Amino acid sequence: MSLLDQPHHDGSAGYVPAGPHAAGDVVPVRVRVPHAAGVRGVWVRTVRDGEPRVAEARLDRAGEHEDVYVADVLVHNEPSHYRFLLGTPGEPGGFRWLHGAGLADHHLPDASDFRLTTAPPAPRWLGAGTVYQVFPDRFARSAAADARPVPDWAVPTAWDVVPDAHSYLTPRQYYGGDLDGVAEHLDHLEDLGVTTLYLTPVFPGGSNHRYDASTFHAVDPVLGGDAALARLTAAAHARGLRVMGDVTSNHTGNGHDWFRRAQADPGSPEHGMYLWSEAGSDVNPHHQPGYVSWLGFHTLPKLDWSSDEVWRRMVDADDSVVAHWLRDPFALDGWRVDVANMTGRYGRADRTHAVARRLRERITAERPDGALVAEHFHDYTGDLPGDGWHASMNYAGFSRPVWGWLADPATGYAHLGLPVPYGRGSGRAMVAAMREFASRVPWQVAAAQWNILGSHDTPRVRTLLGDAGTVELAAALLFAYPGTPMLFAGDETGAVGTTGEHSRTTMAWDQAATGGPRWERDTHAMVRALSRLRRDSAALRDGGLRWAVVEDDAVAFLRETPDERVLVVVARGPWAGARLPRGVLGDQPPELLHGGALVGTPPLVVGPDGVDVGGAGPAVGIWRLA
Amino acid sequence: MSLLDQPHHDGSAGYVPAGPHAAGDVVPVRVRVPHAAGVRGVWVRTVRDGEPRVAEARLDRAGEHEDVYVADVLVHNEPSHYRFLLGTPGEPGGFRWLHGAGLADHHLPDASDFRLTTAPPAPRWLGAGTVYQVFPDRFARSAAADARPVPDWAVPTAWDVVPDAHSYLTPRQYYGGDLDGVAEHLDHLEDLGVTTLYLTPVFPGGSNHRYDASTFHAVDPVLGGDAALARLTAAAHARGLRVMGDVTSNHTGNGHDWFRRAQADPGSPEHGMYLWSEAGSDVNPHHQPGYVSWLGFHTLPKLDWSSDEVWRRMVDADDSVVAHWLRDPFALDGWRVDVANMTGRYGRADRTHAVARRLRERITAERPDGALVAEHFHDYTGDLPGDGWHASMNYAGFSRPVWGWLADPATGYAHLGLPVPYGRGSGRAMVAAMREFASRVPWQVAAAQWNILGSHDTPRVRTLLGDAGTVELAAALLFAYPGTPMLFAGDETGAVGTTGEHSRTTMAWDQAATGGPRWERDTHAMVRALSRLRRDSAALRDGGLRWAVVEDDAVAFLRETPDERVLVVVARGPWAGARLPRGVLGDQPPELLHGGALVGTPPLVVGPDGVDVGGAGPAVGIWRLA
Repeated sequence: MSLLDQPHHDGSAGYVPAGPHAAGDVVPVRVRVPHAAGVRGVWVRTVRDGEPRVAEARLDRAGEHEDVYVADVLVHNEPSHYRFLLGTPGEPGGFRWLHGAGLADHHLPDASDFRLTTAPPAPRWLGAGTVYQVFPDRFARSAAADARPVPDWAVPTAWDVVPDAHSYLTPRQYYGGDLDGVAEHLDHLEDLGVTTLYLTPVFPGGSNHRYDASTFHAVDPVLGGDAALARLTAAAHARGLRVMGDVTSNHTGNGHDWFRRAQADPGSPEHGMYLWSEAGSDVNPHHQPGYVSWLGFHTLPKLDWSSDEVWRRMVDADDSVVAHWLRDPFALDGWRVDVANMTGRYGRADRTHAVARRLRERITAERPDGALVAEHFHDYTGDLPGDGWHASMNYAGFSRPVWGWLADPATGYAHLGLPVPYGRGSGRAMVAAMREFASRVPWQVAAAQWNILGSHDTPRVRTLLGDAGTVELAAALLFAYPGTPMLFAGDETGAVGTTGEHSRTTMAWDQAATGGPRWERDTHAMVRALSRLRRDSAALRDGGLRWAVVEDDAVAFLRETPDERVLVVVARGPWAGARLPRGVLGDQPPELLHGGALVGTPPLVVGPDGVDVGGAGPAVGIWRLA
Repeated sequence: MSLLDQPHHDGSAGYVPAGPHAAGDVVPVRVRVPHAAGVRGVWVRTVRDGEPRVAEARLDRAGEHEDVYVADVLVHNEPSHYRFLLGTPGEPGGFRWLHGAGLADHHLPDASDFRLTTAPPAPRWLGAGTVYQVFPDRFARSAAADARPVPDWAVPTAWDVVPDAHSYLTPRQYYGGDLDGVAEHLDHLEDLGVTTLYLTPVFPGGSNHRYDASTFHAVDPVLGGDAALARLTAAAHARGLRVMGDVTSNHTGNGHDWFRRAQADPGSPEHGMYLWSEAGSDVNPHHQPGYVSWLGFHTLPKLDWSSDEVWRRMVDADDSVVAHWLRDPFALDGWRVDVANMTGRYGRADRTHAVARRLRERITAERPDGALVAEHFHDYTGDLPGDGWHASMNYAGFSRPVWGWLADPATGYAHLGLPVPYGRGSGRAMVAAMREFASRVPWQVAAAQWNILGSHDTPRVRTLLGDAGTVELAAALLFAYPGTPMLFAGDETGAVGTTGEHSRTTMAWDQAATGGPRWERDTHAMVRALSRLRRDSAALRDGGLRWAVVEDDAVAFLRETPDERVLVVVARGPWAGARLPRGVLGDQPPELLHGGALVGTPPLVVGPDGVDVGGAGPAVGIWRLA
């Protein structure tokens, strides 16, 4: 039996009316029940004030291949969660639960229930767009860059030198990219189908990454200063591009004005903004005497969110850090928040959700369509109820699963700190991880999550996966999976790098026209095609997600809106192929939207009994079915 | 490969030093790694302040069949959670996570991580004992009962009449059992190996179940009044038995003093103790105009835990409800809290954890070894972090899974409100549910959970399972599984009943000596034997849990302390049998502790290559292996 013969529900428009929903609303939720599933009886289980109740669903539409049932969910708690109970008399146990991570033949906790939230979703431009991450020192130099004085911390480095992976030079290598350089290359972004520019920090600090800000109220002069940021956002906005900044809410640099005063004067208002500790008492291995810092690095003293002064300066004051840069002339469209997962957490204190909610309020008060995205390398499922961070970087629910399926085991590069020399995992393991993480956040959050193949904190995807063809497999998943694709600048040209730092490579603009070892034109064309395909397909942007094939070496899924159905097939190698039910087709024959550019395209044959997907691989195929 | 060839960890004494642990403690945790598992490399993953780290474990003991690794976990957050990463080069993906619910070949959220808590565990007498639930009206009549006036609500009913399952008479049938009647039969409890008597409510109300209290400050005169409770607890304590009461923290009766004043006078201090609502605005179907009530039943108005007066009267005042009955002469040893899952929850308000923590503080201030157990029919996993309720009734993680495996599908009785006509589920489905629920609470909570085959709120286990032999299978699981076995009085004599109300049968003391249709002597002997076996085995009381066989028709597991290993095999029908690794044996041959009394006993044969468990069934066998 095909996976597509199983009952299905998700939070997309075909099943749930668009939110946000208000307390007291009765929301009709629909579930698709193929006849082949052998279901007799459909119920919805909701939970109110801690007490479940089970109510029978109503038949909404009876079809040739499948029926649709509808049930009511009262919005009462936050979130209001639900799942479906299916009578399956032909199977052991006689029932199945349909929950966010799939079907279960056993009772299970509510954590993966579907859920409705009264929180507004992320701004439309976020999940419907594609984000392009720029590390300002490495993207492009404007003509003005040559004339600028070199900062104290910096070691000038030629544009085509490979960054040091791990040395005393690593944070000091200074390539001299600047914000006017970014502005000069917005054509590249637009051509690539990108809709949002995300800049890693632009505040001055003591390093090329600038996560050690010495102030939050100025743009680093070596990037062009405040005026350059204003020019860049104006230029971007003129093209309809959004621009997001990057702020550290967990810590400042130890060179920050606030920290200097805090350290110099225990009576200062700034002193209470940091976490002071007995020498050696911090739990982190690199601990420096006297204060708590990010993973013990003394350059990054941790902010104490029990301090009113932190709230005031970071969020609440009229000209707070968060508010200042959202306003003209800078007009950022939102923030990516560094180390959001640790912000406000220390020992028994946990203010992370309070910080997230208040940041969100402040941002949307300044800009109703402003966005707030959390850095989170790990288990974000407890941190994304929907009313704080709009979304997070989806390392756990996308990057790691995809790497685990596609990474070249011979490379042996660490996957976000895990030491195991991976073999390639199965497609089943990849999909299980993706579903487990996605099912524990509201659909509207999952649909905005920043899916990532690589960032300034990881090895380059090209290096991890080993060859450009495998990158196409990953890119097909990136642009076809629900959420917000995020590209790290350079991934589209085949950039390489073995660690986050080693991957902070410059863009080889000089090779763009002709191609070259640092600008693979076929990779660029492939990424551009997939990105544009997503831009132009409502189903790929906004559709629901139904898994169609989950095999060791191949996966396939449908993305569906009420008006469009797209089939995505990705095979990492030869496999047995699969037959999909005839009912997935519409009136027209399948239309190939993207065949493999660097790998093959699987054959798709429509027959009387179904649609046969051939077992060629490696291969990518994306079809519009209806 | 046997399941026993897989790596294993749990929170029992063989793996984790006994808690509670204090913030700053570095706790060594051990993991058992059989050579057959093919593991190369063991790491522990911990999470501090939202950020994971992975550290290599150290080899602690190298053995003939298995090695033990040890790793350090810093107690820093509450809880502090961890899991193990295993290098498995021979398997797809090359790694496995070992977490609370088993092994995973994919990345997963932290929800099922092992966890350490700084909260003290349940009092020792709870998890190490067996609870016997008495519904006072139905257990035994003392001689004084005949002389008592009949309450207004009551319809006197002869002792041997079967209770109405669902009629206007159901809450009114009055059999006249009383507390002195209970005291007269403590021999029965002691003989059965019971250690704790749990009484459903003894406060006066307007029904035989008394969950609609009209006061919390008197024992119902028809049960013998305050003096009878004092006599009962004194008699029980004299035998070393504990006694627990039952209090409704979610609601009172509508005849309660507080509610009468609250309703009569909007200016009264009591008015703010309840949730008033517009007519028709409550979300519950039976809503009566004017106030919120338990599932809409107007007799049970819901307390509002945003009211200081509720906190004061229920918990904080010197003579609060909770405190009063813990003191001499009543000297209850703790409380079972009715509808704990809804207490303090309404719409966006959720004070359940705050209530639980404060109740716990108050109870342990009165009696350092006092116990607090939550009624929870559903997903309790978010409600048991360890510092509030010591444990909950384990319907979700024990009753339902066991019923799903063993219930007679022909009976068709509802399983806690689920409408599906169940077939029998697989052993795999049962164990999956048990593990998913158990893994989401600290081990010390799982080890105290009230495991239940039936209660005054469910059909009788004898009725659900269909025959006495199948009850033996369930009883073997009950007394051998980690947690606190709870017996509903009458289950040990084969009582029947199709609903909670129908199951509130009287005890047929007149048949005790000779046996009879309402006192099955073979069932009684079987329950007594299993209960006493648990009482006398440290492994069954306190041991860790390793699953050895998980098949459709049979399950087996080990319970282990550092000094004792017990093997439990339960088969619901014929199955293929299994070979366990030779390493499970000690120096002595296996000692049969319990063979099937009403079903068969599986053959156990020790051979050179392992221990063969024969596939006979239905069958029960419990052996001491070492």
